[in-house]
Amino acid sequence: MPERPGEFDLINDFFSPLAAGHAGSLGLTDDAALLAVPDGKELVVTADTLVAGVHFLETDPPAAVAQKVLAVNLSDLAAMGASPHAYTLAAAWPRDLPGDWIAGFAGGLKTAQESAEIQLVGGDTVATPGPLTLNVTALGHVDAGNALRRSGANPGDRVFVSGTIGDAALGLGLLTDEIQADNEADRAFLVQRYHAPEPRNGLGQRLVEFASAAIDVSDGLIADAGHLAKQSGVDIAIDADRVPLSAATRHLLDGAPALSGHIFAGGDDYELVFTVPETALQLVAEAAAASGTEVTEIGSVTGKTGSRGAVRLLDAKGNLMKSDKGGYRHF
Amino acid sequence: MPERPGEFDLINDFFSPLAAGHAGSLGLTDDAALLAVPDGKELVVTADTLVAGVHFLETDPPAAVAQKVLAVNLSDLAAMGASPHAYTLAAAWPRDLPGDWIAGFAGGLKTAQESAEIQLVGGDTVATPGPLTLNVTALGHVDAGNALRRSGANPGDRVFVSGTIGDAALGLGLLTDEIQADNEADRAFLVQRYHAPEPRNGLGQRLVEFASAAIDVSDGLIADAGHLAKQSGVDIAIDADRVPLSAATRHLLDGAPALSGHIFAGGDDYELVFTVPETALQLVAEAAAASGTEVTEIGSVTGKTGSRGAVRLLDAKGNLMKSDKGGYRHF
Repeated sequence: MPERPGEFDLINDFFSPLAAGHAGSLGLTDDAALLAVPDGKELVVTADTLVAGVHFLETDPPAAVAQKVLAVNLSDLAAMGASPHAYTLAAAWPRDLPGDWIAGFAGGLKTAQESAEIQLVGGDTVATPGPLTLNVTALGHVDAGNALRRSGANPGDRVFVSGTIGDAALGLGLLTDEIQADNEADRAFLVQRYHAPEPRNGLGQRLVEFASAAIDVSDGLIADAGHLAKQSGVDIAIDADRVPLSAATRHLLDGAPALSGHIFAGGDDYELVFTVPETALQLVAEAAAASGTEVTEIGSVTGKTGSRGAVRLLDAKGNLMKSDKGGYRHF
Repeated sequence: MPERPGEFDLINDFFSPLAAGHAGSLGLTDDAALLAVPDGKELVVTADTLVAGVHFLETDPPAAVAQKVLAVNLSDLAAMGASPHAYTLAAAWPRDLPGDWIAGFAGGLKTAQESAEIQLVGGDTVATPGPLTLNVTALGHVDAGNALRRSGANPGDRVFVSGTIGDAALGLGLLTDEIQADNEADRAFLVQRYHAPEPRNGLGQRLVEFASAAIDVSDGLIADAGHLAKQSGVDIAIDADRVPLSAATRHLLDGAPALSGHIFAGGDDYELVFTVPETALQLVAEAAAASGTEVTEIGSVTGKTGSRGAVRLLDAKGNLMKSDKGGYRHF
């Protein structure tokens, strides 16, 4: 394996090219980056850290790790309705991490940042005796006063989710051999969903016009809908049968219904959960179509609770389902 | 030792109070923070990561670690002439780090952020099987187009440095028993300079009016002056005898002249090195007085070199000094 380059070589060889498209990065040669924020816009800032062996598998391909560390941050911007503008990367590299791993990682960042139309503008690169630790801080813009919040949901609002839920958790289970798939295409799809989440920025930017609240699904559908419920001070009911599943996930669930825990509590989906007043329902389909994102209604806001707020998962008969050893079952 | 709180308790107990003063932090309860950037200002963004055992000692007091992780970032803002506005903290905590360590760390952050008049606005907190890893991203403002850069030095400019140089490197040497001090007050002073660097933001914000280039000293005086020289495409001569030393550092050097390597190459000073055109020299003293920062002229920009640039350290007779096993000696 190639010898590990030093800090300055790393920056020159792998990261300066990722900053070349943004004048404010100053080519990663100065003490900080300079960013313009247009008049009338607010800056939206989010930071997420991924640790090897904790948030991703040491065996994950470097390009997938790059895609993920950018996507989890862009997903937070999407949940605020912000348009992505730039990001910083602070990386702590293990001393024995091969240079070609870093090259693959930089290649994955290039693909991901081109897809999101943003550039690297700064950061830090240090050595660590511990696991690879990656922090991205993502910066976006939103019309001042117009950001989507977790706290705006009201009784009567409908609850929607983008994409499909549970794929990433099943993909992780397949990679760790906790789960088996008969079908190679299903396996490849689910692993891809784990490795390369697609942040829903196009949708999020459109939701600011009419959604009452939003959050992205990182901890799991029930947990994150719960965060939204708590911040809004409302109760939410989700119809389990309406939660959108991919064909691959349906195939696995048909053979092993106990995997439902992966669907509702698995996390790593990086889809958006959002609430919409009844008066604006016709705008959801337009936003979905304009952003090329599938969107599904999965429930409703059932009541005002003040400072608390909770999510109930209901079966087809409207009965409460309960979490049980990682799965969900009828009472 | 108290049991380690979970992520949400950590945020509630220790970090939400640090965000209470900034409405845009949204109480650390949403997906991202919202920041206003005033018209006519540019946003200045910098990120630095500290790893336990690499960038600070595992035995350093938690409040000192907090002070340092904020100060190293504020120092980057100072070097750009920016006024600090807010920061994010992304922390990867070892599972066995006691809760009272984190409490001490949060207390240190409180002191440091109050001193800098800024607030925490977001971030992330995760677990790691490796060493404590702390990333701060600091955000500041500067008049658009007016940021201090490393690249503006010109032949004839004078070179200045703030504060005193070498204290922190000697403080580290004392903590690791590489160096001994006879005098307890000297030792305490130098250790404090290592533990609690003072970012020079008041000075930096005034330098934008007349300095031609600036950088902060993190890698060492010669190395960082070298970065400035390279980015400006100039040669710089520094008079070794004019480099400002604290009384404590002079005491140690008197007993052990070989420690000069700690002065010129030691790093962790977080002082500013900056260049000033001859026409603006009278403004240096005014900026120093107004910001309560000592400033010393240590050399000059001697010539234009195009894409290269280097620093020469000269003795009292104007002869080149050379680095030798960590120390500096006359040829």
